[in-house]
Amino acid sequence: MPDTVLAAEPPATIDALDTPALVIDLDRVERNLRRCQDYADAHGLALRPHIKTHKIPEFAHRQVALGARGITCQKLGEAEVMADAGISDILITYNIVGEAKLARLAALARRCAIRTVADSAEVAEGLSAAMRAAGLTLPVLVECDTGAHRCGVATPEAAAALAARIDSLRGLRFLGLMTYPAYGGTEAVSAWIAAALAACRARGLAVEVVSSGGTPDLMRAHEVAGVTEHRPGTYIYNDRSLVARGACAWEDCALAILATVVSRPASDRAIIDAGSKSLSSDLFGLEGYGHIVEYPAATVFALSEEHGNLRIPPGTQGPRIGERVTVIPNHACVVSNLHDFAYGLRGGKVERTYAIAARGRTQ
Amino acid sequence: MPDTVLAAEPPATIDALDTPALVIDLDRVERNLRRCQDYADAHGLALRPHIKTHKIPEFAHRQVALGARGITCQKLGEAEVMADAGISDILITYNIVGEAKLARLAALARRCAIRTVADSAEVAEGLSAAMRAAGLTLPVLVECDTGAHRCGVATPEAAAALAARIDSLRGLRFLGLMTYPAYGGTEAVSAWIAAALAACRARGLAVEVVSSGGTPDLMRAHEVAGVTEHRPGTYIYNDRSLVARGACAWEDCALAILATVVSRPASDRAIIDAGSKSLSSDLFGLEGYGHIVEYPAATVFALSEEHGNLRIPPGTQGPRIGERVTVIPNHACVVSNLHDFAYGLRGGKVERTYAIAARGRTQ
Repeated sequence: MPDTVLAAEPPATIDALDTPALVIDLDRVERNLRRCQDYADAHGLALRPHIKTHKIPEFAHRQVALGARGITCQKLGEAEVMADAGISDILITYNIVGEAKLARLAALARRCAIRTVADSAEVAEGLSAAMRAAGLTLPVLVECDTGAHRCGVATPEAAAALAARIDSLRGLRFLGLMTYPAYGGTEAVSAWIAAALAACRARGLAVEVVSSGGTPDLMRAHEVAGVTEHRPGTYIYNDRSLVARGACAWEDCALAILATVVSRPASDRAIIDAGSKSLSSDLFGLEGYGHIVEYPAATVFALSEEHGNLRIPPGTQGPRIGERVTVIPNHACVVSNLHDFAYGLRGGKVERTYAIAARGRTQ
Repeated sequence: MPDTVLAAEPPATIDALDTPALVIDLDRVERNLRRCQDYADAHGLALRPHIKTHKIPEFAHRQVALGARGITCQKLGEAEVMADAGISDILITYNIVGEAKLARLAALARRCAIRTVADSAEVAEGLSAAMRAAGLTLPVLVECDTGAHRCGVATPEAAAALAARIDSLRGLRFLGLMTYPAYGGTEAVSAWIAAALAACRARGLAVEVVSSGGTPDLMRAHEVAGVTEHRPGTYIYNDRSLVARGACAWEDCALAILATVVSRPASDRAIIDAGSKSLSSDLFGLEGYGHIVEYPAATVFALSEEHGNLRIPPGTQGPRIGERVTVIPNHACVVSNLHDFAYGLRGGKVERTYAIAARGRTQ
C-alpha cells in the first residue's frame, strides 16, 4: 500500500515492485527532455513544457534546469502544486471561471509569475475584476482555435478583437496568442496565426508571445511563422499513440505499467492485473489498449477496470500465470493521473520513488 | 484544493463547491440500497455488495447495516482499506498472485474473515502455500466463466476439477462457485451453474456458496437456480449505462459531476471543465460521455483530459459561460476512482464530505 515510507525507500529491485506499478525509465526521460530542448534552442523557440503528462515537480524542475522558460499547467490545482514545489513561472492554458478559482488565481499570482488565457470577453472580464481587486496585473494570451475545435476564438479577427478588449481592461496585460493546434495542421495554423498577427498589428497591438503546443508535431513547431514558444507535454515519456504516428520509437517510450499475468483462461487469452484503472480506457484512435514489450504480437483487446485482456497469437505460448509484462499505454498523461507513485528505474534498479503530486487536481 | 480541513468542514451550499466536483445524492443512495436489500431478502439471497463502485467505507458500513452479508472487493488494496475501516467480512473476487500480495492476503486473513477465488491450479497452489505458512485456512471459490469471457474456468467440468484440487490443498477450504455473468445471459448462466453443481456433486464436493454479480441483471439474480448470494456494485449510484439498459431511471442516478461551462466557442458548442480526468473515457457502448441533467438534449460528444465538449441542439440557447451543469456519467465506478472526495448532498445542501478512501488502490 503506497505511503510516505514507501515513497522514501523504494524497493531496490524491479522484481520487488508489486504490480500494477507505473515505472519510468529515467535515462529515456533525460534523453527525451534533452532532444526537445536542443530542438527548441536550435530554432530560437522558448520551451514551456506542459506538466500534465508527468505531474511530478522533480521533472518540472529538471525541464527548467535544462533550459525551459517556465512550465504550462492545464488546471489551477496543478499550478498550485508546482508553485508549492518552487516553480516560479507558470502558464495556465485554461479559462479560469468563477469566484473561487479567481481568488485562488490571485493568491497564486502574488507568489509567482503567472500568465493565463481567455477566449471570450466574459472570461477576460472575470480575470480583470479579480486582478483589480487584488491590485495585480496579469499577462493574458488569447486562446485561438486554429483547427482543433475545442476552446479558442474562431477567427483571426475575433482574436484581435479580444486582444483589444483585454488590452483595455484594468488588471490585465495583453501578452499574445496561444493555440493548441490539431495534429497535422501546421499549414493551417501558419495561415491562421499570420492573419491574427496582421489583425493585431492593424489595431496597434504588440504580440509578445505566440505559444503553440503538442508533442506529435513538436519538431515542426518552428515552421509556423511568428511562434515564439512551444508547450509539448507527452515528449517526456512518449506513448503508443506517438509511436503509431511515427513521432518516436518504442525505445523512446519512458513510461510503462508493470503488470502480472493472473489468469490464462484459454490458450489464446491471458489476463493481466492492469485494467482501465491503471491504463485508462483512452483508445486515441488506436486498436487495443497498449503494447506488451515482451510479447509485441499480443494485443490488449479489452479492458475492464482491474483486468487487461490479452489476445495471444495462434501458435505462440504467451506468458504463464505469475509472469510479469511491461505495458506501454496508448496515452501517457492519463496514466500518470491514475497513479499515486511512479518508480524511477535506471540500470535495472529502482532508483527512486516519485509522488505524482499533481495527480487528481481536477480543479 | 481538497485537504483534511475541507473534508471535515464541507461547504454548506452546493454553489460553494468548486468544480468539477463529484456529488452524491444521499437520499437516492439510501433508496437504491434499500430497494436492492429488499429484493435480496425477498428471494432469500445473501447480498454482498461490490464496493468498487463507491470505494467509501461509510457506504460499505451502511450496506452491511441494511443487511448485507459482507462486502466484495476487486483488489487486495481495497480490502485493506475496508478492513482498516472495520469491515469484517470480505470476498476478494480476484486471483491473488505473487509473494508480495500473498503475504498481504495472509496478514488480512489474520484480522478479518476473508474469502477469495481461483480459476487455476497455479493460483490455488499459491494461496495454499501462503496459508500453510501462515497457519490459516482460507475459504476459496472457483471462478467460473459463464459467458463474460474474462477470468474463470471455461467449463462446468473444469470447475469441479478445480474444486476438487482446492479441496485437496492444505490451507484452503473449497467454499463454492463464483461468476461475473455477461449482461443478459441469465439463461446461459443457469445452465452452466446447474452443470457445475452436478459435476461437484458427482465428486462428492459440497457447494456452500454460489455467488453471482452485476447490477444490470440484478433483479433476475434469483432466476439462476442454486445462486446463494449476489454481488451488485453500481446499484448504489446507478449511471447512464444503466439508464440506457432500462435498469433504472435518471431519478435513480445518485452520482454526478458538477461542472462549469468555461467556453462557448460556437453557438452549437459549449465546453465544460470536466473531461476524461473527471468523467473517464469509458463509453460502455454508448454514444457520448454523459447526460447533462439541465440540458438533456445536449450531447457530450468528445472529451479531452480537462475539457468536455457539448453539442447544443440547433434552435436552443444552451448554457452561458460560468453556468453550472450536472453530468451523469456513463460509468459510475471509474468516476469514483478519479476523485479524492465525494460531496454528499441532501435537501439542496452539502451534508458531508466523504474521502474516497479506496480510490487508486490498483494493487
